[in-house]
Amino acid sequence: MARKINIVEVGPRDGFQNLCDYVPVEEKLRYIDGLADSGIRHMQITSFVSPKAIPQMKDAVDVAREALKSHPDLDLFALVPNLRGAQTAHDIGMKKVTNVISLSESHNKANIRRSHDESFAELAKIREAFPDMDVSVDVATAFGCPFEGKIPTERLVSFLQRAYDLGVREFTLCDTTGMANPAQVREVVHTVREKFPDCVFQAHIHDTRNMGMANTLAAIEAGIDYVQSTLGGLGGCPFAPGASGNTATEDLVNMLNEMGFETGIDLESLVALARDEKEKIPGIYSGHLINIPKSA
Amino acid sequence: MARKINIVEVGPRDGFQNLCDYVPVEEKLRYIDGLADSGIRHMQITSFVSPKAIPQMKDAVDVAREALKSHPDLDLFALVPNLRGAQTAHDIGMKKVTNVISLSESHNKANIRRSHDESFAELAKIREAFPDMDVSVDVATAFGCPFEGKIPTERLVSFLQRAYDLGVREFTLCDTTGMANPAQVREVVHTVREKFPDCVFQAHIHDTRNMGMANTLAAIEAGIDYVQSTLGGLGGCPFAPGASGNTATEDLVNMLNEMGFETGIDLESLVALARDEKEKIPGIYSGHLINIPKSA
Repeated sequence: MARKINIVEVGPRDGFQNLCDYVPVEEKLRYIDGLADSGIRHMQITSFVSPKAIPQMKDAVDVAREALKSHPDLDLFALVPNLRGAQTAHDIGMKKVTNVISLSESHNKANIRRSHDESFAELAKIREAFPDMDVSVDVATAFGCPFEGKIPTERLVSFLQRAYDLGVREFTLCDTTGMANPAQVREVVHTVREKFPDCVFQAHIHDTRNMGMANTLAAIEAGIDYVQSTLGGLGGCPFAPGASGNTATEDLVNMLNEMGFETGIDLESLVALARDEKEKIPGIYSGHLINIPKSA
Repeated sequence: MARKINIVEVGPRDGFQNLCDYVPVEEKLRYIDGLADSGIRHMQITSFVSPKAIPQMKDAVDVAREALKSHPDLDLFALVPNLRGAQTAHDIGMKKVTNVISLSESHNKANIRRSHDESFAELAKIREAFPDMDVSVDVATAFGCPFEGKIPTERLVSFLQRAYDLGVREFTLCDTTGMANPAQVREVVHTVREKFPDCVFQAHIHDTRNMGMANTLAAIEAGIDYVQSTLGGLGGCPFAPGASGNTATEDLVNMLNEMGFETGIDLESLVALARDEKEKIPGIYSGHLINIPKSA
């Protein structure tokens, strides 16, 4: 039987976050509906952050409430930088959030204005306040930092251990600025899976240096079953200079389907959706399939 | 010791071939000089084709003659579609040519207006006429054809055997329209290396479906030591609908250097060259490193 790979679409958060123009609630919901129709079962649908920091996410509550209502059977979750964000998620009935902390402390300070101690203290508060909510951790700059460069895997392991000791059992290894290479991804994934065999790992890869597809495949072949991507390759990190979009979901699905993995996603409808959204929502799209003439 | 990977730059042929505007001889030579300065030792520098078919290559003799004079120590070769092209190459003292034949017969007819029988007869004539010249074969559509779809590996093996029987010992497996996937590349490379252990194989991968880097890496990890790419990702095949550029040389070199392979190429100077050429020669560039702000 074909191995199942779970595509985790993060366009509604990491894609939209990087857009200059505000996308109205109805459009965001239409986008999420389209992804669900194509067979996507896992989505990071928004982030509960300060609207001053990221104005695009000012409608997070409305988007999340409606999406949860429309798609009660899907794994829909949100990014939260702090207890306040987690509180909002909990209040509207969201069952899962991901708390972002950068492995690089300088990046953590630039991104969420916290030291590691402050971030882990906040994570502890979130865990204590909402014992019934799934809390995963997005490990930003897991494969390297634009300020600090590569970070030894032992530091990643210690970092994960701090969250593990607070009860966290799910992590996303984020290549925030596309600094990873396939050999490093394999090494890191093998190490963390060996050290934390009872944890689930996701990979969140950026395509900044053209290794998005190769690194995502490396993560999968090293044993990761959940890979994040954005429709059309829309997105990036506004706090990391030079960071371009994530791996494009439809390009990734095409590769995995062609290789014989089971994604459960209808490629044709996904590409049609990506083409359609590219027309409707202006932004930087790094996907390739959307740019191939339909006749080809 | 690190494994040596030989980067074979094909931008002066496959990149320029796809440009609408003519690039003058001096610019082409400056381009080749820049590549040599960055440490590139292998280059497909032009093609000896009818100027009516590809006007960009009307200066092939001038470019090749000057480049051979300036870089006598490098492996500089040209693409030839027929005996006439090989004769021209031979006349100016070129030691190596590559004769292109498509694995897909319908693509062969579209590309060079010949049946397989006609192409192999021409290859035999080239081999007979110039026994002192290295003649390799570019196997176009080796991983799939826009007209015929995927082609069974057994047909590739029979195709290679026909050329092998004519004395050919070097082949380039070309993913002309970017239809390959990493699993297929591994399977094909393993098969042909097993069937033809005394032959050298190169991989020529297009990035049409965003698998350029992953497929090139798959070829390398399956045992191929020579990989083709174009500076900046410039290029494509004008006879294959939807085909975009090759894998970008500098992106590939970056990945391989980061992974610990030995390329012998200075990345910084290569990226600077790619950025410079992008300014000077307008075209479609799919490379990523050239688009990262220098501050990143």
